[in-house]
Amino acid sequence: MPLSEFQLIARYFAGLSPPDAEGVVLGIGDDAAILRPPPGEDLLVSIDTLVAGVHFPPFLSPRAIGHRALAVNLSDLAAMGARPLWFTLALTLPEVDESWLGGFADGLGTLAARCGIALVGGDTTRGPLSITIQVHGAAAPGRALRRDGARVGDSLWVTGRPGLAALGLQRLQAGVADDDPACAAFLWPEPRLAFGRGLAGLASAAIDVSDGLLADAGHIAERSAVGIEIDATLLPLEGALGAIPLSEALALCLTGGDDYELCFTAPAAASAAIAGLAAAQGLSCRRIGTVVPGVGARCAGVETTGMGYQHFRESADG
Amino acid sequence: MPLSEFQLIARYFAGLSPPDAEGVVLGIGDDAAILRPPPGEDLLVSIDTLVAGVHFPPFLSPRAIGHRALAVNLSDLAAMGARPLWFTLALTLPEVDESWLGGFADGLGTLAARCGIALVGGDTTRGPLSITIQVHGAAAPGRALRRDGARVGDSLWVTGRPGLAALGLQRLQAGVADDDPACAAFLWPEPRLAFGRGLAGLASAAIDVSDGLLADAGHIAERSAVGIEIDATLLPLEGALGAIPLSEALALCLTGGDDYELCFTAPAAASAAIAGLAAAQGLSCRRIGTVVPGVGARCAGVETTGMGYQHFRESADG
Repeated sequence: MPLSEFQLIARYFAGLSPPDAEGVVLGIGDDAAILRPPPGEDLLVSIDTLVAGVHFPPFLSPRAIGHRALAVNLSDLAAMGARPLWFTLALTLPEVDESWLGGFADGLGTLAARCGIALVGGDTTRGPLSITIQVHGAAAPGRALRRDGARVGDSLWVTGRPGLAALGLQRLQAGVADDDPACAAFLWPEPRLAFGRGLAGLASAAIDVSDGLLADAGHIAERSAVGIEIDATLLPLEGALGAIPLSEALALCLTGGDDYELCFTAPAAASAAIAGLAAAQGLSCRRIGTVVPGVGARCAGVETTGMGYQHFRESADG
Repeated sequence: MPLSEFQLIARYFAGLSPPDAEGVVLGIGDDAAILRPPPGEDLLVSIDTLVAGVHFPPFLSPRAIGHRALAVNLSDLAAMGARPLWFTLALTLPEVDESWLGGFADGLGTLAARCGIALVGGDTTRGPLSITIQVHGAAAPGRALRRDGARVGDSLWVTGRPGLAALGLQRLQAGVADDDPACAAFLWPEPRLAFGRGLAGLASAAIDVSDGLLADAGHIAERSAVGIEIDATLLPLEGALGAIPLSEALALCLTGGDDYELCFTAPAAASAAIAGLAAAQGLSCRRIGTVVPGVGARCAGVETTGMGYQHFRESADG
């Protein structure tokens, strides 16, 4: 892309690099950013790509795309119990569309400012619309939440209303107004950063719900070499999910993706502290199952064969 | 992409995460990697995207694409004088082609092993072919080479044979066999990591030559608020560049990109040490100009209006 276009694009993102950001010796504008990691802390990094037509539908506004691109990455930091520090942005655009860039930067920047994460570097290229973000966070040594710490006898928990985002996507695709709570859950996923940090020291394993509750609980089970049993009667099927047929609600809750809630395991002794943490933050959090000997995650009494969630995609090439 | 495809892809990259990699507490397979930055050192990060048809031509082999994707990023660490530590890979593929993946992973992995950089995380998605890599390196505090340290009176230097890669691209596009040295310069760019690290403490500013010597020297000039005068008679127009008409060689040397050589400034007092460093590493390095009061980079006597290099692109959408 010609330099003038680079400069144009850079203008939209200048506000995402606050001058007082922690640990930033040199931000955007050199061959690399120079960062000073918090002494004595572990560094957490995660990278994710959103491809237009695969990870978000064509009706998504530039502002919602900007929010989403950062939110899905921050959600990974939340699932590790980490404190956000910095992010980099690799943006591939088919053309320079100032209206699109303005909305995108606004959605991205609003979330970045709220979560206290600073843009420290990036790359802009011309090509099919695609957004790759890497987030960097910090956690006290050995305190980051991993997927491999679940132990038999632990409880399984989940925040929020998993399945709500998938219901919202259905409604958006059907043309429902986007101020519906389910639509908002899909459009404006909220990374559970404060809750994730509170879980460090309480939870034994954690993951964010991006592929669907059953699949993501399955990732914990696999990495921890345990089985996980979800109790269908404990699932949080209230609100919009309580107003649709139970079988549909169950399917959405267990296999709908894009919620970016936290799913985690914890010993029974931590239950009161977890409930207290959730109450203090005004976040719904429910015990929904148990870690058992065995392999994989399942939900007794619910037939989940053939269920699966692949995020949005234009062509069903799964 | 279905899980089985993820697993398939993961198999190709498993070898790029050596178990003894420095500072890796937890690599691929969780929501984020857990890293332990070298205590007391600065962390350098750089992210770059390569889009098929924009940043590399269709005839490039998967192995050369894998090499290139990492090399252009490592070159940014070289230009900062940093020691490579870790990288992440966000790979977008139109389909799972095992032959392509094998070649790509081989090109990527061979360079990674040689440069001592470990894969710690990534993301694979379906979409138009695109490769985003972020590299992480370390440097002693305050010792990283920046673009903004050039001072009036410093000398300008460049390693290798800038312009050779652009000549190689011309020849490859004309169907010349790829064992031509110019073609090799385009196909297998070599990040000047050891030289860059040696420059820390000697150079006052540095950049890698990706956009063309004149443009990249111009970036140093801009960030350092100085002028840079390149002396055409000092340019390293030997070898393949010496065998073509001088005006063409000059144009390629000043505006050809994709060389990933290092261009840097240094006080005159450092000249002997720089020459000694280059000799010790068997790397050609030439003094080619001077930092002067003023604005921008120019090469007296050479008309460069209209010259510019935009890497390879399928459609000239400049």
